This record gives sequence, structure tokens and C-alpha cells, in this order.
Amino acid sequence: MKISERVEALRQCMKREGVEIYIVPSTDYHHSEYVGDYFKERAFITGFTGSAGTAVFAPDWAGLWTDGRYFLQAASQLDGSGITLCRMGEPECESIEAFLERTLTSGGVIGFDGRTIGVAEGRRYEEIARKKGGSVRYDLDLVGELWTDRPCLPEEKAWMLDEKYAGESTGSKLARVRKKMEEYDADVHVLSSLDDIAWLLNMRGNDVAYCPLVLSHLILYSDRVELFADAEKFSEEMMQRFREDGILVRPYHAIADALAALPSDAKILLDPERMSYALDQSIPAEAVIRNAENPEILMKSMKNEIQTANNQTAHLKDAVAHTKFMYWLKHAIDTEQITEISASEKLESFRQEQDGYVEASFAPISAFADHGAIVHYSADEESNAVLKAGSLLLMDTGGHYLEGTTDITRTMALGEIPEKEKDDFTLVVRAMLRLMNTVFLYGCSGANLDYAAREVFWKERISFNHGTGHGVGHLLNVHEAPINFRWKEGDAPAPALEKNMVITDEPGLYIEGSHGIRIENELLVCEDVKNSYGQFMRFEPLTLVPIDLDAVLPERMTAEEREMLNAYHKKVYEAVSPYLNETEKEWLKHYTRAV
Amino acid sequence: MKISERVEALRQCMKREGVEIYIVPSTDYHHSEYVGDYFKERAFITGFTGSAGTAVFAPDWAGLWTDGRYFLQAASQLDGSGITLCRMGEPECESIEAFLERTLTSGGVIGFDGRTIGVAEGRRYEEIARKKGGSVRYDLDLVGELWTDRPCLPEEKAWMLDEKYAGESTGSKLARVRKKMEEYDADVHVLSSLDDIAWLLNMRGNDVAYCPLVLSHLILYSDRVELFADAEKFSEEMMQRFREDGILVRPYHAIADALAALPSDAKILLDPERMSYALDQSIPAEAVIRNAENPEILMKSMKNEIQTANNQTAHLKDAVAHTKFMYWLKHAIDTEQITEISASEKLESFRQEQDGYVEASFAPISAFADHGAIVHYSADEESNAVLKAGSLLLMDTGGHYLEGTTDITRTMALGEIPEKEKDDFTLVVRAMLRLMNTVFLYGCSGANLDYAAREVFWKERISFNHGTGHGVGHLLNVHEAPINFRWKEGDAPAPALEKNMVITDEPGLYIEGSHGIRIENELLVCEDVKNSYGQFMRFEPLTLVPIDLDAVLPERMTAEEREMLNAYHKKVYEAVSPYLNETEKEWLKHYTRAV
Repeated sequence: MKISERVEALRQCMKREGVEIYIVPSTDYHHSEYVGDYFKERAFITGFTGSAGTAVFAPDWAGLWTDGRYFLQAASQLDGSGITLCRMGEPECESIEAFLERTLTSGGVIGFDGRTIGVAEGRRYEEIARKKGGSVRYDLDLVGELWTDRPCLPEEKAWMLDEKYAGESTGSKLARVRKKMEEYDADVHVLSSLDDIAWLLNMRGNDVAYCPLVLSHLILYSDRVELFADAEKFSEEMMQRFREDGILVRPYHAIADALAALPSDAKILLDPERMSYALDQSIPAEAVIRNAENPEILMKSMKNEIQTANNQTAHLKDAVAHTKFMYWLKHAIDTEQITEISASEKLESFRQEQDGYVEASFAPISAFADHGAIVHYSADEESNAVLKAGSLLLMDTGGHYLEGTTDITRTMALGEIPEKEKDDFTLVVRAMLRLMNTVFLYGCSGANLDYAAREVFWKERISFNHGTGHGVGHLLNVHEAPINFRWKEGDAPAPALEKNMVITDEPGLYIEGSHGIRIENELLVCEDVKNSYGQFMRFEPLTLVPIDLDAVLPERMTAEEREMLNAYHKKVYEAVSPYLNETEKEWLKHYTRAV
Repeated sequence: MKISERVEALRQCMKREGVEIYIVPSTDYHHSEYVGDYFKERAFITGFTGSAGTAVFAPDWAGLWTDGRYFLQAASQLDGSGITLCRMGEPECESIEAFLERTLTSGGVIGFDGRTIGVAEGRRYEEIARKKGGSVRYDLDLVGELWTDRPCLPEEKAWMLDEKYAGESTGSKLARVRKKMEEYDADVHVLSSLDDIAWLLNMRGNDVAYCPLVLSHLILYSDRVELFADAEKFSEEMMQRFREDGILVRPYHAIADALAALPSDAKILLDPERMSYALDQSIPAEAVIRNAENPEILMKSMKNEIQTANNQTAHLKDAVAHTKFMYWLKHAIDTEQITEISASEKLESFRQEQDGYVEASFAPISAFADHGAIVHYSADEESNAVLKAGSLLLMDTGGHYLEGTTDITRTMALGEIPEKEKDDFTLVVRAMLRLMNTVFLYGCSGANLDYAAREVFWKERISFNHGTGHGVGHLLNVHEAPINFRWKEGDAPAPALEKNMVITDEPGLYIEGSHGIRIENELLVCEDVKNSYGQFMRFEPLTLVPIDLDAVLPERMTAEEREMLNAYHKKVYEAVSPYLNETEKEWLKHYTRAV
């Protein structure tokens, strides 16, 4: 069935249910960024496979809202579907809410699957419908109805993350969260976010591609825990550990009834940004709700010393794998046929050689020449380009290791590249280095520091349409709240950067139809000197992989920037060279030389 | 009566009224930053004369909370009073709320004059008292009781600002605000902030030193305006204009009764940060309150084209006056006895020579050598230093002109100064220039850009304990919300910088016991190119006064920074030289030379 036929079938269902506008978001029942195949309804109904985007179906019009990372991909995948691409962040782009307010007719019904829509979002739709004398229907799954070959919910096994990797016991974490509940004067805490649950229980799984998570909900009481998940996932050993920590396993779908059965005088701490509208609706109306960001979010972003030391180990392994790959690439390009996909597989094979490697931490991006300008390009059999000397290869990849999660982007010159590309490459390197080398007073958030990367771009009146960096989970989600480098803040401003937090630094430059460049290091937030002005902070690079000097024009850098590059490369050589063979070492020596 | 005796008398009154802890803030009934003499209760009871600070009196302890600008001044003025200085912003400094929570005994009463405490603040005190089973008393003015020689409320005349200066009629402004009321679904809007009222009515006065404001409150209805102010202030011509705009004048103190008499179904737009707790308490409990920042705040910060052109004229006049002063100072230092105060008077006399000059826009700071390290130093007869060659003079001054308001700081070398002071001076100049020359995408706030000034400081592990910049009113308050350059945001994050807004750029470096340096330009927010990345923005300097090259070490600047300095000085020479005599012009040529 073509996309346009699916949309037509959806409109029939909408008519049957009396729904005027139907909304299909990209998330699962847990507000996850990456979702299992079972949940990919938005991709099924629009053909757009990017990780972020919301489809809206009106009687005579359909639109897909997505962000700058996906403009090119979405434009191409939506072609011929009759669905309009709405470019979020561009001045002329109306919000979904504004669209609903403008077009919903008097008494009209807005429909959606309430399990896939967050509380705040659902309430906004409810309010818009109410103003028009209409209502919402949130008990529908119309796309699911049409999706005859829908995949099953995952049945993968879960596993415990040993305390030598987690650095803190489940009991200690539960105690810390319960203390927070007391501060909020709450006796119940509901969690639907998979990474918060995984962190809290030192539990990992395989239910979501690239994210070692277990499909589950959780209710934390002052004296016990109810974990809503398929009991088949847990070994007897895990069940034993759960019992020791007062954790009771209940069926995955029992969460709604459990919430409905809470005492009416319950005081419930929940995060409206991380719970579904449908679950929220099932809570007794008389219960007192303490709306707050899940306390787990800040706790898990502040890594402990054991995690930090482990993370450095993971990054060293990753650096060895990536450096070996670069050595291979620079030589093999002259002798072998390499494609975007085979390059990516080669890099994965170097990672697999490392002890403790688990899996890729996200869908690898391997984008040659003009493909590099598509920010979240994913090579498929059709698009898979053969690499040739004369242009750039952008690879944004990462791995989960037992010791931690990596996320790195390197753009590499294949053969001799045009001067303009070197010029652009040098600009991106300068931006990355300037941010990495910032020194700041404790209390700064990423919004205060983003300018350090943007400055060299903005002076040229250019920019890049994505955040400069995001927090990284520890064997959890590669994109982890709450920190980021973004000058444009959302509704919840990013908090201060704290010691041992991990954040990426990844400016980029994208020239449509020609090339794309992104250089990404992961940074560890560190304390610097403390004096009468306060506690100074700085970053240490976790990522230790050379930046391709074949594409750098040192004369376009200031003396200070060249020093930053040379100091970084010195650190790379010292850390990585002991793990290389002689020819690789020789190569690295040259590629980390001072310029 | 000594301060300690006043405090003792206050404690007697507290005991009589059954008040355990009494709070004395620095503001008036309008949440003004600068207040008329009538309102200076906090200065009367503590001896500390700075513009910001809150005194708290417990049975056995008294404290004064103030910010970094005033640490040195407050420490000196509080000496011997028995009042403890609480340094806000320092990590170990407890907030007033935390102090109250910690020390208020069970059932205790917190007292304050509710007219001088904001709504949000009063509610916090109320909540703290409630938690302890206590209460607040807000109908007290215990300091006023003791203050036998208290000044009168001002009886100065008000005046209209002609539309050729205001750029927009009162009628047009009222219409815009009423449209905002509709958006908030409000039929009443209460204003207590003097500058918002003055802007809205194109009215100015003389009730507050340095701020051309009229003591007043205002209630805006959909069909009329009630202005609560002493009718004696207004000429018949003004009363006529008021009548034409539907503005009714009622007695200043009648505001509380007028609010109490609002219909119980009124929907009232008010700014809890800019209204007193006492007035808020007088509103009928059944009324619907729309809490929002006064819409006037954003409107008046976005200057219109007429104001902008006028403002440039005001700054040119100010630049001529300041340049003539610098010429005089550099020569007179060798031949005349000059003091901090006489230098300040001399600069004022140059301003008075300019057409359209009204008055100083704030208390001038003229601080020689080590006095410069006291951020808001104010020379008095006792401290008034004689200027001598060999150190720096910091002058932070400004003027109100009919065309606009200026705020400028220049630090000037008297004779040859030590290398270390030149080094520090150069650092401050670099920071000021780097921020002034930023280019940014529309949407950035000052919090995104503050790093541009801080970077060179933080790299040296030093900083300055004040914001880098503030909005400037147009013949209104010299410190004007809502924009600023501050990396540490308050509860209300600063909004985006919009075309024609005016903001200062004033980094500083303060070496206690030695010297202080601050360089301050006012900047106009301008549109730059618009392209596929968005609307770029930049700043134009409004201030056109040379930066003392006698104190600059060009070799400590990057080539780019030297270019910034040279480009700025070229602009200064071109703008100012036509208004100078030949010898002054010659001098300026030398002091604006390329380095």
C-alpha cells in the first residue's frame, strides 16, 4: 500500500470515529527518543523514518513537523505522499498548536493515542479543543488498526549492571530518590521514562535498538517498588535481587489500573514531560500531583567517580578502534572499493575487537560528499555511495561499552580535497576547540557557553541548525537530559554544568549538494581552581581521536587555536599510541603533529 | 542617635507589636530601584546608603543583605552598628528566606511595611510564617515611627514629554496595552511601576533623584484610566491632555480603596514583581488575577525610530561633553588641584553646556586609585580624594537629555601608571570590545552573549561581581528591564535582544586596595544581514568617547581586537571632532590613533 493510500485509509477511520484531526507522534508509551519497531506508527503512516517528527492529519491536509536535522531527509521521503513538510524553528513555520487553533472547526474532535502523547502536550490539545467547544479522543490507535504486519512488542531478556560499572547500588539510589520525594512532600513517585528506570534499578535490556533499556513503568512508594514489565524478561537471579530491594514485578500493561487504584489522598510526584497523557488521566482526580522533573534525571547525569573512571576507559577503547579505522581508511581508499555502509561496518568491526563492547549506541551515520550535508543521513542500499578521493566522509558513530557510552563524529578527507572544503573544515575545528577549551564559573549552563562554538560561525553570517551538544548517558541513552549546549533554550532551561557530567561538543557546517562537516568530542565537566571569584570549571576531552590534519588550514587559525589543536593531539598520541602497532603508531605520530 | 540606638528602639517597637522578625527593604511603594528621600528607611535604620539591600532584625541579631557592588561600602558603613553584612551571591551566604525558616520560632510573627514589599516576596514570607504556625503583619511602618525628621513626600511638578521626543502618542500606547489586556483576557490592568506609568502617559516629573518620574499608581480599564497622583503636580494644560486621553486624576493614596472597590468578577492583569504586597491584599479575593510581566516593560524597551534617532543625538552631545572633559583632565592634572568631586562637577558642567540637557541620570561615580575598586563608590566630603599622577580615575556618569539617557564609564590614566594597571586596563578593554562586536542570530538573549565579555577574564581565572550590562530607559530609569548581559539568570530569563533596544556593555576589574577599572559603552541593537540561517543581529556603539590609549598595551591584544579598537576610535573621531576646537581636535586625533 502506498503512503497516500494509508493516509486515505486513516481518514476513513477518522471519519468513522468522528475525529476531525488526528495526531501521530514519533514516540512510544515512554516518551523515548528512539523507539522499538512496534512503536514506529509515524514512519508507517508517513514514510518518514527520522527519529523526531509529528504527523497531523486534517480532512483535506496532512503535515509532518520535524526539526533542522531532518529537513532534507523528510523532504525526500515525503515526496509524493501528499504530506506537507513543516520546518520547525523556521520563522514562517506555524506550531502544531497554532495549526490546530486555526483549523479545528467548532465542536471538532482532536484524536490521538493517549499513550504516545505527553501530559503537557495532551493538555494543550484538550485546551484547544475545549476553546472550540470540541473535545479530545485519546483512547484510539487508528494507525495500529491499519498496520496489519505490525512487529511484536520485544521479548528480549533484561540483565543487571554490576555495581562495579554502575558505581552505586540500587538501594542507595532508591534512598536518594525517596529523600527527594520527601522534599516534594510526595508519597508516590511514578516513572515511565525507560532510562530513569534502568538507572534507578541498575538494570539494562534489549528492548530498543541502540538503547539497552527494558520496556517498563515503575511506581515508587516509600516502602516498596512496583516494576511493570514482562516478568519473562528477568532471570531468577534478577528476581532475587529485586526482592532484596523491595521491588515487585507486575505485568507491563497493569500500570494504568495500578495508577487508577492509588488512594485518593496520594501525593504523587510525576514528571509531566515524561509521562503519557493516558496514564495521567488514569490517576484518581482527587490525588495531589507534585509536578516536577524526575529527580532521577539530574542524579543520573551527575556521574559518580567509578562511572567517570570507567567512562575514560570506554573512551580510550573507542579511540583505539577509531584511530585504527582512520589508519585503515586513509590507506584502503587507494586500493579497495569502500562504500558508506562498508566503511561503517569496518569501524564497527574495530569496536567489536574491544573488550566489553556491547553494541552501537545509535544508528551510525556514514555520509560521503553531498550526503554529509543531510544532518541525520542514514545510508541504505539505494543511497549507499562509493567513496572516492577528492571529498569528505562524515562519520557520526558511537558504542556502548560496559564501562560507558561513546558518541564521536569525525569528518575525514579522502585524498586531496578542495580548498573551500578545507576552509570549512578548519572553521568547524576552531569552533569545536574553542568550546572545548572554555573556562567558566560554576553555575554556567550550556546556554551561556554555546557562543564559544557559534562565534566563529556567526562572524561569517553562517550557522548550523542543531544544538552544539547534548548530555550522554552511561550505558543508557546517547542523548540524555538535562544538559546541552543550545543558545535557544526550551521551556525548561538547562541546569548548571556539574562536575563529572558528560556533554558532546559537535559544531557542523552543511553545504547542500556539496559536503557536510561535523567534528564531535565528548567532554567531561571538571573542576578547575577555586578562588575568591568562585569555583572555576573546565572541560577535559573524553574523546581522544585525531582530527584529520589533511583537511586543516593552520593559517586560518589563531595562534591560540593552533595551540589548542596541538595540545589536544599531543594528548591523543600519548593515550592511544601504546595500543597501536608500529605502522599505525608512526601514522598517528604524523597525524597528531604540531601545526 | 547612633545606629545601634535606632536598632534598639526598633526592637522595642517590635516587642510592642508582637513582631519577632522585622524586615526593612530599600524600595518605595513602587518597587523602584532609586527612591525618593522619604523612602530611605533602610538607610536610616542601618546607616548603609547603597541603592540595594534588605535589612532583617531578629531579637538578638540583625543582618543586611546586599550584592557584590556594595560589599566594600556596606562593610565600612555597617562597622560598629552591630549589623552583620550578608554577601549575596557568595556560596556560603544564606538567603533571607532560609534565614527566616531557620530562626523564626513556632508561632512567630514576621513584620514589614507591606507597601514596600513585592507581592511574590510577601507571599514567601507569609508561607514561611504559616509553616511555623505564625503569621505576617504588613500594616506596620515601625521605622517611620522612629524617624522624627523624615523628609516629606515630593511636591515637584510633572511635565509632558512631547511626541517629537516620545515618538508615539499616549493614545497609541494605551491602545497597544489594551490589546495585550485582551490577549490576557483581562479587563483591568494595575500599574505601580513609576517608569511604566511615565512611559505610558508620556509624562515626566521630579519625584525621584536622577529619575524623571512622578509618584503615582494607575488603573487601566478598557474605557478609561485612573491615575493616582497628587493633582497639584499637573498644570491645567496637562489636565486637559489627560481628559482628552480619558485619564482621570485621583489622590495618590486612594489606590488601595480603588482596588478594594473593583467588581468581584474583575479580571486583573498585574505584575507580581512590580506591585506591593499591601496593594495586592486590597484586591477583592474573588477577582481573577492574570499574573504577567507588565506589557509596558517589553514595549518601552523596544525604542521606536524617533527615539532611536534622538538617542543618537543625545549620545553625540554626551560624547562631546565627555571628550572635552577628558582633554581638560589630561591637561589640568599637571596644573590644578582636582578632587574626585571637583572632577565630577567639571564633567557635569560640560554636560550642562549641551542643549536639551536635563540632569544627571544617576549619582555620578568618580573614584580615584583604590576607591575605584569599590564598585559603587560615591565620594563624600570625607572620602574625597585629591587626584595625583600615577594612578587611574574611574568615572561612571550619565545624563538625561530630552533626546535620551546616557550611561558611560571611562577609566583614565593620570600621568604614567604602573604596567600592571595597564595590563588590567587592556583586559577590560578587550572584554568590552569583544562583546560590542558580537554578531548573533535573532533570538539570542544577553545570557547567551555574556561569555563574549567574560571569556578573557575567565581564562585568567578572574571575574567581576556584577552584570556585564543592563537595559537603559529613554529619559526614564537608567537601569531598565527586561534585557541585560548576565550569565547567571534570575527567575525571569532575559528575553531576546530586539532591534532598537539599548543595553550597556561594562566589564570591570577591581583590585581591592589598589585600583578599579570599568569601561562602559551603550550599545544599540541592530539588524544585520538576513539569510537562510536567519536574521543576524549586531550592535552599534551609541557611546562615542575615546578609550584612554595611555592605559592600553596594544601588544596584549590580538590583531582582531586591535582592529576593533581602531575602528571604534575612527568612528569616535569622525563623530566628535566637528564639535571641538582646534586644540581639542588635535588632542582627539592623537587619542584615537590606530594602534
